[in-house]
Amino acid sequence: MTQSIGFVGLGIMGLPMAKNLLNSGYSVIGYNRSKPRLQEFAKAGGTPAKTIKEVAENAQIVITCLPNSQSVSDVIFQKGGLLEGFQNGSTLIDCSTISPKTTVEIAEKLTNSGVSLLDAPISGGEEGAINGSLSIMVGGDSDLLSQHMDVFKSMGTTITYCGKSGAGQIAKACNQIIVASQMVGVSEAVLLAKKAGADLDSVVSAISQGAASCWTLTNRAPDMIKGDFTPGFFAEYQYKDLCIAVDSGREFGSPMPQTMVAHELYKSMVENGMGKDGNSGVLQILELLAGTTNRAI
Amino acid sequence: MTQSIGFVGLGIMGLPMAKNLLNSGYSVIGYNRSKPRLQEFAKAGGTPAKTIKEVAENAQIVITCLPNSQSVSDVIFQKGGLLEGFQNGSTLIDCSTISPKTTVEIAEKLTNSGVSLLDAPISGGEEGAINGSLSIMVGGDSDLLSQHMDVFKSMGTTITYCGKSGAGQIAKACNQIIVASQMVGVSEAVLLAKKAGADLDSVVSAISQGAASCWTLTNRAPDMIKGDFTPGFFAEYQYKDLCIAVDSGREFGSPMPQTMVAHELYKSMVENGMGKDGNSGVLQILELLAGTTNRAI
Repeated sequence: MTQSIGFVGLGIMGLPMAKNLLNSGYSVIGYNRSKPRLQEFAKAGGTPAKTIKEVAENAQIVITCLPNSQSVSDVIFQKGGLLEGFQNGSTLIDCSTISPKTTVEIAEKLTNSGVSLLDAPISGGEEGAINGSLSIMVGGDSDLLSQHMDVFKSMGTTITYCGKSGAGQIAKACNQIIVASQMVGVSEAVLLAKKAGADLDSVVSAISQGAASCWTLTNRAPDMIKGDFTPGFFAEYQYKDLCIAVDSGREFGSPMPQTMVAHELYKSMVENGMGKDGNSGVLQILELLAGTTNRAI
Repeated sequence: MTQSIGFVGLGIMGLPMAKNLLNSGYSVIGYNRSKPRLQEFAKAGGTPAKTIKEVAENAQIVITCLPNSQSVSDVIFQKGGLLEGFQNGSTLIDCSTISPKTTVEIAEKLTNSGVSLLDAPISGGEEGAINGSLSIMVGGDSDLLSQHMDVFKSMGTTITYCGKSGAGQIAKACNQIIVASQMVGVSEAVLLAKKAGADLDSVVSAISQGAASCWTLTNRAPDMIKGDFTPGFFAEYQYKDLCIAVDSGREFGSPMPQTMVAHELYKSMVENGMGKDGNSGVLQILELLAGTTNRAI
């Protein structure tokens, strides 16, 4: 019999992930608040559910891919939510990027209802979701992960077990801390080079191969120099993820003097209406600080 | 006739660079304050000079590789320094990492004496100096660089012209800004993962291939997790270079909120007697802030 998987949150990431599950031969029952995406899901062979509860009633494995901690809690615990439908022994795989603390709290509550949670935030962007090449960072019970590895492999290529419940979210927070460090560091460097009148392309080329080499310098600096901040990853999402990092730093007593700076700069992007720019657009906030009004550098 | 090159500063980087020039067939006359290194230079076929002035008297091209702005100024302008020996039309190639502002000031003074300066800071470490595989970032007159390209190629593999006088130093400052961003970002991430009880090696492995990928995560994080901060690059040099970056930010009106944090953390390393640890040891300052006394994490 075909295994049934539930999927709540058929957004930019969720819909292509659900399609990859369908393509792998799973039967998928899905729910999404906005109806056009649910119709697209149905066209791809998915079974649209009328309520969230119905998803949990019809699948032993449910995947959520939602915007934030609150929406994940709501989908599970609200009236008519997953908890009312879950069967004893079900597994919830949460692919959302949310607070590690909230994750642990949810996991504890679910355990009391006989449901196991794996936190499984993803990276790799829309392209990775479409190609099934996501990187998935997993926290929770390792045996449970092994048991469901085929499901994970239908959505991603790199599945890494990071430890107990919440450890997947911690890994994602670590990822975002380092991404932001690079974005701000490269921005400060590029702006210095510009203001000092050096040849920007040459400077980037000169330092790209040594100890400064990083994803951002290779993949974003050339466009940053042109003033092109077309989003790969929205600045407002970067800000949201840095809020999780900073909150986790507080929760676990871990100092974040540098991440705090990035947090402030991305907050300023959102406040300046740049939330839908790419996260490389943080350079524009440095330009504001420098009194440079020209968007293109 | 064999071309003669002068070399002042036969330190960890300078001596192997001078040896590579000798191996390329140049005649090299060198000076170093400490005598054992001068003897080693002589053993390799170099001509030891008794005074700095003598170096400039016997070579149309002089290379300096010195610890800081002050030592470069001293070697040139002090009594018995290079300026007293320079021939009209000589070229000074300064491979030291110093202030871009000081570089421009020196270049202007030298021009009045008929001497041209190329600022040419290096990266690639002792290994790069020995193998002749340094990356050299050059500022000054581009024709002059072309004219002396063979000399540069004897010492490095990637020679990048970055613009007018001081632009090589700006490129080096940009390099160090990004290196420090990575070091601090990776440290904040690793400490969060540790304090949250995640599996550190797994977390690093999970995030090493995506948008967080960088030289530090690949080459330093595994040792950082073990508490091994064996120097590739001394923390006290990282601090010195961040001082140059921050001073340049002031000079050119370029904001550096994130680099300023790294500047403070590396200052704390020096003040805590960790200056001879590797720059990855900045993790230890975060541990201090977190109240963690155990050196090994």
